[in-house]
Amino acid sequence: MIDIQEALSQVLESSQNYGQEKVPLMESVGRFLAEDIHTDRDAPPFDRVTMDGIAIQLGDLENQPLGSYPIQGIQAAGLPQMTLENRKHCIEVMTGAIMPKNADTVIPYEEVEIQDGQAKINLEKIAKRNIHYRGSDSRQGEKIIANGKKINAADIGVLATVGKITVKVSNLPDVAIISTGDELVNVDETPQEHQIRKSNVYSLWAGLMKDGIKPEMFHITDDKTELEDKLKGLLKDFDVLLLSGGVSKGKYDMIPEVLDDLGVQKSFHRVAQKPGKPFWFGFHKELNSKVFAFPGNPLATYVGYQFYFRQWLHQSLGEKLQFNVCTLGKSLPGNPKISQFVPVQINKKNGEAMPIKNNGSGDLFSLSQTEAFLLVPRREGENQAGEKFQLIEMS
Amino acid sequence: MIDIQEALSQVLESSQNYGQEKVPLMESVGRFLAEDIHTDRDAPPFDRVTMDGIAIQLGDLENQPLGSYPIQGIQAAGLPQMTLENRKHCIEVMTGAIMPKNADTVIPYEEVEIQDGQAKINLEKIAKRNIHYRGSDSRQGEKIIANGKKINAADIGVLATVGKITVKVSNLPDVAIISTGDELVNVDETPQEHQIRKSNVYSLWAGLMKDGIKPEMFHITDDKTELEDKLKGLLKDFDVLLLSGGVSKGKYDMIPEVLDDLGVQKSFHRVAQKPGKPFWFGFHKELNSKVFAFPGNPLATYVGYQFYFRQWLHQSLGEKLQFNVCTLGKSLPGNPKISQFVPVQINKKNGEAMPIKNNGSGDLFSLSQTEAFLLVPRREGENQAGEKFQLIEMS
Repeated sequence: MIDIQEALSQVLESSQNYGQEKVPLMESVGRFLAEDIHTDRDAPPFDRVTMDGIAIQLGDLENQPLGSYPIQGIQAAGLPQMTLENRKHCIEVMTGAIMPKNADTVIPYEEVEIQDGQAKINLEKIAKRNIHYRGSDSRQGEKIIANGKKINAADIGVLATVGKITVKVSNLPDVAIISTGDELVNVDETPQEHQIRKSNVYSLWAGLMKDGIKPEMFHITDDKTELEDKLKGLLKDFDVLLLSGGVSKGKYDMIPEVLDDLGVQKSFHRVAQKPGKPFWFGFHKELNSKVFAFPGNPLATYVGYQFYFRQWLHQSLGEKLQFNVCTLGKSLPGNPKISQFVPVQINKKNGEAMPIKNNGSGDLFSLSQTEAFLLVPRREGENQAGEKFQLIEMS
Repeated sequence: MIDIQEALSQVLESSQNYGQEKVPLMESVGRFLAEDIHTDRDAPPFDRVTMDGIAIQLGDLENQPLGSYPIQGIQAAGLPQMTLENRKHCIEVMTGAIMPKNADTVIPYEEVEIQDGQAKINLEKIAKRNIHYRGSDSRQGEKIIANGKKINAADIGVLATVGKITVKVSNLPDVAIISTGDELVNVDETPQEHQIRKSNVYSLWAGLMKDGIKPEMFHITDDKTELEDKLKGLLKDFDVLLLSGGVSKGKYDMIPEVLDDLGVQKSFHRVAQKPGKPFWFGFHKELNSKVFAFPGNPLATYVGYQFYFRQWLHQSLGEKLQFNVCTLGKSLPGNPKISQFVPVQINKKNGEAMPIKNNGSGDLFSLSQTEAFLLVPRREGENQAGEKFQLIEMS
């Protein structure tokens, strides 16, 4: 049995690049950038008016702007640059417009009185120019989004601004989700007393969809020949197999043995963690497929996906997945042998993580109340309220 | 000009239910539940074995289990319940199986030696039964997910378990995203010096898609007749209009006037906040459409969407959107006149919010570095490092 950090580092070591593709801008959201993004122009691309008002030629900010300025015209946003022809005149300017030539200061309408084509300035002291100067955010050619970033809604706006109609992104791995366990029946069936409906595969499916991956779902019965036949095919057809169940010490927990027979190299089996101790991870060298075999208990599968698979995915395709830390809101007994993923809700008033009651790793319903897992490393003594731990947020 | 809390409460007052629909389980993720979810059986539905090992009839936990137990058979997961025929015998049991009749305790394989059909127990003191008892998580008919919850990946697993092949969810509003401003050109065009490409509408589009809404995008030029004609049609055809631009004090900021002409009732115009002061909000009573008219600056539009629209959406369709709080990592000057949405990154080591440099609300590129906005209310004096404020996370 290995420690959680050792398990994670072995999982991350098997990260893998699946190549790149170009997708239209609007399909790139949620994907990992596979190129640096540079500005195509200075930003802003021109001296940009930031207030509606009048533009004058003031010179020094110390100068006295008081007086009446005949209005030469209107510089609207979207119109080519005008020129202030007379330094005692002004041009009305609109937010977002290019600053007229020869003008250097915008006086907002709030400080101006307009009558009979004249703008009278009511402001004695000028504090600022109200210009967003060309290139003051960034210079043409500057890197503004780094290769590897997971593209969010704000990035889409940035990509649009620099004219990226297509975006180079990392290919996503093909993922198979596989349930095992003869006690499982389909969602549309009525289980007999000793049976339950499948659930983990649906949670995995929903999680993967949120990460942009469209997985396929399979079920294999607890029959060694069937397991071998089907897993053999899936190892060939998919980049990643996410298994749920079949890795404990039971008579029908044949997954580790079958994977071994099929040439999948075991990285580890069993991690000093709760839930999810019997987690098995390995890879097939020739076929280049990875196998995450999670224990079948709902919390074990779910936390395994969130902690191991998602870090592996980020490491493989782009930027590192960084979890936040969060303050424990209530003392918890420590466990010197095992690290714990503690299901928590976040207290919205003070931001602290409050452990929620659950009935062990089989308690699926508590998972629906869980906002995140606090990763409390194995240690002697108590975990004190007020200490900070990594927060594994639900994707 | 009104305060941010007053603005928010007026926005939330105009929340609205758009009816319900039934969708297949796998299409329900990200939607808001429009029914309470109850268990269809006890959970677990039977006394469930939680360790691989042997099941015996021990009676009192104080009893001495030492001895050799002839193995009667194997109770696998997915098999109907067996009966322990002789109280001096045992049945091998697998995690997830139903507990055999007449047996009351599972001894894990780790504590057992199996030879010649006999299981010899090496454990002197029994501490627990290793049974997840029927109904100990919840009783049949118990409410396990409340009406209004936004369905996440864990919920999908719960819904699967209780056999919800279709799920009742709230209908989503039809949303139109409308850019205005003659300085804007399309992403595939090369802007002239005084022009820029559209960007806000793409960020809004990506944000809405994440909330499950498939919006339509429109552009209207700064022409009063065109504005009136097009907005008139959009008010009829859509439940919500999200406008970007045209609400400041400029000559061509005709949105408020045009909306008024079209019978849209103004709730407010201008909020004591930065960015996004000229935010305009209203609704058309007869047509039953809402109008969020955000200032055209990227940060103003984006923060307006995240703070006002998303709270309105949650209030309309289901559970309240609750923002977490976060500790400010660095002191900031207070502003007695205006509340500030401060762009921040989260320090992953201590969980504190660190304000990031930006060049004003027109600085789109800084938005791509922003992880969240800290809402610092208007106040005298300094906002001290260590104080906690609401964190508006990016959707």
